[in-house]
Amino acid sequence: MRSMDVGVLGATGVVGQHFVSRLARHPWFEPVWLAASERSEGRAYADAAPWRLAAPMPAGAAGRTVEPCTPGRGPKVVFSALDASVAGEIEEAFARAGHVVVSNARNFRMDPLVPLLIPEVNADHLAILPEQRAQKGWTGAVVTNPNCSTVVFASALAPLRQFGITTVVVSTMQAVFGAGYPGVPSLDILGNVVPFIGGEEEKMERETLKILGSDGGRVNHAARVSAHTNRVPVIDGHTITVSVALAQQPDAAAVAEAMRQFKGRPQELNLPSAPQPAIVVMEEPNRPQPRLDVDRGDGMAVVVGRVRPCPVFTVKFVAMSHNVVRGAAGAAILNAELMVAEGMI
Amino acid sequence: MRSMDVGVLGATGVVGQHFVSRLARHPWFEPVWLAASERSEGRAYADAAPWRLAAPMPAGAAGRTVEPCTPGRGPKVVFSALDASVAGEIEEAFARAGHVVVSNARNFRMDPLVPLLIPEVNADHLAILPEQRAQKGWTGAVVTNPNCSTVVFASALAPLRQFGITTVVVSTMQAVFGAGYPGVPSLDILGNVVPFIGGEEEKMERETLKILGSDGGRVNHAARVSAHTNRVPVIDGHTITVSVALAQQPDAAAVAEAMRQFKGRPQELNLPSAPQPAIVVMEEPNRPQPRLDVDRGDGMAVVVGRVRPCPVFTVKFVAMSHNVVRGAAGAAILNAELMVAEGMI
Amino acid sequence: MRSMDVGVLGATGVVGQHFVSRLARHPWFEPVWLAASERSEGRAYADAAPWRLAAPMPAGAAGRTVEPCTPGRGPKVVFSALDASVAGEIEEAFARAGHVVVSNARNFRMDPLVPLLIPEVNADHLAILPEQRAQKGWTGAVVTNPNCSTVVFASALAPLRQFGITTVVVSTMQAVFGAGYPGVPSLDILGNVVPFIGGEEEKMERETLKILGSDGGRVNHAARVSAHTNRVPVIDGHTITVSVALAQQPDAAAVAEAMRQFKGRPQELNLPSAPQPAIVVMEEPNRPQPRLDVDRGDGMAVVVGRVRPCPVFTVKFVAMSHNVVRGAAGAAILNAELMVAEGMI
Amino acid sequence: MRSMDVGVLGATGVVGQHFVSRLARHPWFEPVWLAASERSEGRAYADAAPWRLAAPMPAGAAGRTVEPCTPGRGPKVVFSALDASVAGEIEEAFARAGHVVVSNARNFRMDPLVPLLIPEVNADHLAILPEQRAQKGWTGAVVTNPNCSTVVFASALAPLRQFGITTVVVSTMQAVFGAGYPGVPSLDILGNVVPFIGGEEEKMERETLKILGSDGGRVNHAARVSAHTNRVPVIDGHTITVSVALAQQPDAAAVAEAMRQFKGRPQELNLPSAPQPAIVVMEEPNRPQPRLDVDRGDGMAVVVGRVRPCPVFTVKFVAMSHNVVRGAAGAAILNAELMVAEGMI
Repeated sequence: MRSMDVGVLGATGVVGQHFVSRLARHPWFEPVWLAASERSEGRAYADAAPWRLAAPMPAGAAGRTVEPCTPGRGPKVVFSALDASVAGEIEEAFARAGHVVVSNARNFRMDPLVPLLIPEVNADHLAILPEQRAQKGWTGAVVTNPNCSTVVFASALAPLRQFGITTVVVSTMQAVFGAGYPGVPSLDILGNVVPFIGGEEEKMERETLKILGSDGGRVNHAARVSAHTNRVPVIDGHTITVSVALAQQPDAAAVAEAMRQFKGRPQELNLPSAPQPAIVVMEEPNRPQPRLDVDRGDGMAVVVGRVRPCPVFTVKFVAMSHNVVRGAAGAAILNAELMVAEGMI
Repeated sequence: MRSMDVGVLGATGVVGQHFVSRLARHPWFEPVWLAASERSEGRAYADAAPWRLAAPMPAGAAGRTVEPCTPGRGPKVVFSALDASVAGEIEEAFARAGHVVVSNARNFRMDPLVPLLIPEVNADHLAILPEQRAQKGWTGAVVTNPNCSTVVFASALAPLRQFGITTVVVSTMQAVFGAGYPGVPSLDILGNVVPFIGGEEEKMERETLKILGSDGGRVNHAARVSAHTNRVPVIDGHTITVSVALAQQPDAAAVAEAMRQFKGRPQELNLPSAPQPAIVVMEEPNRPQPRLDVDRGDGMAVVVGRVRPCPVFTVKFVAMSHNVVRGAAGAAILNAELMVAEGMI
Repeated sequence: MRSMDVGVLGATGVVGQHFVSRLARHPWFEPVWLAASERSEGRAYADAAPWRLAAPMPAGAAGRTVEPCTPGRGPKVVFSALDASVAGEIEEAFARAGHVVVSNARNFRMDPLVPLLIPEVNADHLAILPEQRAQKGWTGAVVTNPNCSTVVFASALAPLRQFGITTVVVSTMQAVFGAGYPGVPSLDILGNVVPFIGGEEEKMERETLKILGSDGGRVNHAARVSAHTNRVPVIDGHTITVSVALAQQPDAAAVAEAMRQFKGRPQELNLPSAPQPAIVVMEEPNRPQPRLDVDRGDGMAVVVGRVRPCPVFTVKFVAMSHNVVRGAAGAAILNAELMVAEGMI
Repeated sequence: MRSMDVGVLGATGVVGQHFVSRLARHPWFEPVWLAASERSEGRAYADAAPWRLAAPMPAGAAGRTVEPCTPGRGPKVVFSALDASVAGEIEEAFARAGHVVVSNARNFRMDPLVPLLIPEVNADHLAILPEQRAQKGWTGAVVTNPNCSTVVFASALAPLRQFGITTVVVSTMQAVFGAGYPGVPSLDILGNVVPFIGGEEEKMERETLKILGSDGGRVNHAARVSAHTNRVPVIDGHTITVSVALAQQPDAAAVAEAMRQFKGRPQELNLPSAPQPAIVVMEEPNRPQPRLDVDRGDGMAVVVGRVRPCPVFTVKFVAMSHNVVRGAAGAAILNAELMVAEGMI
């Protein structure tokens, strides 16, 4: 039934724990190999991983011995929850050794030969992989998912490409989860707003244009994008407000309908982690809200609301999705599902 | 010393309490007359007002008998903290009876004959008052201050008028205080974002253009403005992100310097409630923050940070101010100070 | 399959919504009759109930017409989520008319003829029902569940009865949900502690002694109990700290083991809503925590941790459970399950 | 005017910043010497200290060069905001070299020769100092203040010594500030309660008995004390609930009056940081609350409320004070003021 062995690099951190938790109930993938830094190597996973999720640690993971991050030993497919400080070198070594690395790290995201993938949005970017192998001399591959705030943004924009996206201003209200544990100190964020997240605005602006771009991600989308990124005291769920100019000037109803109808390869292939629908468009005037809507589609849906005319551009709206599921572990797992379904793994 | 008796309409509510608290330590105004609804009439203020501020109830107010909101009895100058559901009728009656009503209510804000005043920004709009009296047949007057989210927005834009403001996109992260007590239920906002505040976006868009406009507020500023308003779990301090297009295309340093140099009549006249400087421009990359910066200038400063180039428009920045002080009670008191200093009261 | 029709009184409020949501997926009960005040009568449930739960409104409920709270028309078994201001009269009318009223309201809790039921703790108190019918002249019945903070407290104490409970000091840290919607204003509780909840300490002290008592609840347990009740900024999950004196002076390990082994009729009968185990005893030094542990046992478990010696009494510990599930809607549904399984309905 | 030069050890951390901020406006002490670890040595304070307070960095401190923690160079009186990992060794070296070390660190608190001082409560414990010097061979001295949760607890109990304190159960709801910066991760505490703080219960139990004890702190008070310590999402202000047995069985009114009348040497000597009164006893049923009351007495008051009969012991009540002011920097400064006023410095 569970036909494919997979591994997790960086399995003991909080994002790694999300991988372990979601994979434990995955219909295709069996997480048989959990790797982490030398500090954890050789210990039982239950001892090495300071578990921080509400869902209990999967029984199958608890007794597993943590492996070193050494290429060649583990399964062909490995998910990477590694910290960016080490991900570049390790992921490259794994790809060189023949592994397919499905990574959540930022290191290779902007590499023109590496797909920065949201399966609903740019499944066709996987077509770059043969060239990746050829030019990099890898027998494996690296595929990445975007930054957690980019996912909700690029996904909500994707259905609007048909109308000609020319200009976008986005402002975020991001949950504290995002930089792993311990992350944001409570002294900084309790009852507060921090109107700055290092490097986040640049990531949102650049990653989005690559994802919406063409030729396997080598040609950026031509839209102009300006991002304001802010941290708010919310646990899970990044909320964004978006004002967008569209060349064809559709009305708000047409934009909402385009979002509602939007589907990508995951929905067509009915992949296990694919939310149905891809985008939930809410009618209530005060939604989406992270506390009420973050778990839609098992945490994989992008939830949109308040699609309405914009006095400056064409339309404006609110979008929200789960920053650790749709924005990290769930995103990578969906990437792997797509590659399996497309026969690329 | 305290040369002028003043009154407060709606003195028992939370905004009214802020008036009472600030006026108790005011160098010019003596709050001798506290009025509220029939329910409170005749009771001691200490009994009638369920005190909700951290600062203790002023001794001078506690024993004062609450008066009915009847025009003609109280002092010439009355501050209005009335709820919008009753403010229109009562304020008009007071103005007709010769009182100068310095109001925080929204009812008369968009009336073309009523100044919607931020003393630093449009002190000249007071020039409409003779026509207000003539056309309305009032012997008194009504002067209003803007909505709490408009104040920080219009104030931060004011120094940029010299560069030619053409287009603005603003997204807010607003504190829960704003609609009086009880206001936002904790079930709705704890650990959450609510991306909707009824009527708030329209107010920000319209009020700002009137304030930045000319001819006493009868000619709107020509900029196009689009607002996204959101509630976040913060007690005091509205934070906004702003992207603005400026005809003259100044660089970010020039914009920051214009904000830093900005001063209005309150600063020139050295009014008691005038913050010095009017706008605090911070250099730290992660400021302003409501928890750290909301009390700058005794709660009256507008604090700006992150002035930087905008990939879509000319510049973008963050601004924050105290929603109940600069955004309500303090704003109205500064309006009255200006009128006194200009010899209009 | 779903063999028993049930109704909900007060179905449109937040607690009523929890009933509707949980009953929609119940294996025995079919919620075919939703009643509320005159304001809602005749409207579709989807229009009458301002839905406030994260789980979507059940499809089966949305189109149902809201009925008036008139006895005699609906099913024999009705759950009551009525507000205490009206519950007494309505519940009595329903019991008189032959309905079994399974109530979450406080009105009849301390009535010596009405079971105040935690099925794991005092299932035998149902034996009072014949006398209830006889003395009250009801053909139906009223059964109640305790206040949300009492449930976690009395449940955690129940396994200790065997050691002779003599004295207990309890201090609570309660979630904001508890008094329905809108409940606690955010201005009062954001970043704050409110060390007072009206009537709550008395309820905890009295209800607990009735529940742990004998003779169908007519003879109170003899322990002395002192409660401190506090509100903290948490959405779901009441946490309590308990110091308890036990006549037999067991050590902490024996107390923890007694809790771990504790089971009641719901566990023996394997009722649909019965958590297995009834009490989860955690070993981690910093648990339970509401955010991580509130959904244990589908929200029905009582979670205990830090069982350790008390320098003043015998042992001390922390307990936590879901205030709206275990503490309200789920509690009442378990009460009804018990009555069905015991052949009393 | 400012007659005494003082220094701060560990001046760049958050507690150190509180010392620097409060001393900058102190009428007696002039903070002329700021010392920190090697990493900061030689840098301007403004560059070395990542400022985290709402109050701006004092101008006098910003340009000062950070010194190494080397004894002999700085002023005679040094405040210590050092981390416990290094405080023991450094503070001893300073005391040996003739400095009077007024420390907030925990290292020497339980040393029988070191006063663990709350000036209102046990000013007489300073009498141990000659013996400290003799036995330790120090020419200077070390004086400590208690843990932040002990201060509010021991201070509230102090007026009750006259009634014969025999048994106390205390449960805390502590602010996140307490272990310096970064302290508690926001992922752990947002919308949550953590019912465990490492070592805190032991500190509260032991420190309190030493403080309330006699013979310079060498003979513990005989009361039995049991503490439950919990973290809640509050920035400033530790709230505690207390049930206490008193041998003389006074009623609640007598206890409240004893608290209200309570004064110690700081109040008698009218020391600059002494709150007047020492204990604020509130009558409102729902006070004290950290958000409303934490700044009473410039952050130095202990605020008590809800003094009422306890069904288990004699009385129960709520107490609250500022964990960083009364619980750390302000406490140490008051200790130094007392020593100056008593002629011991």
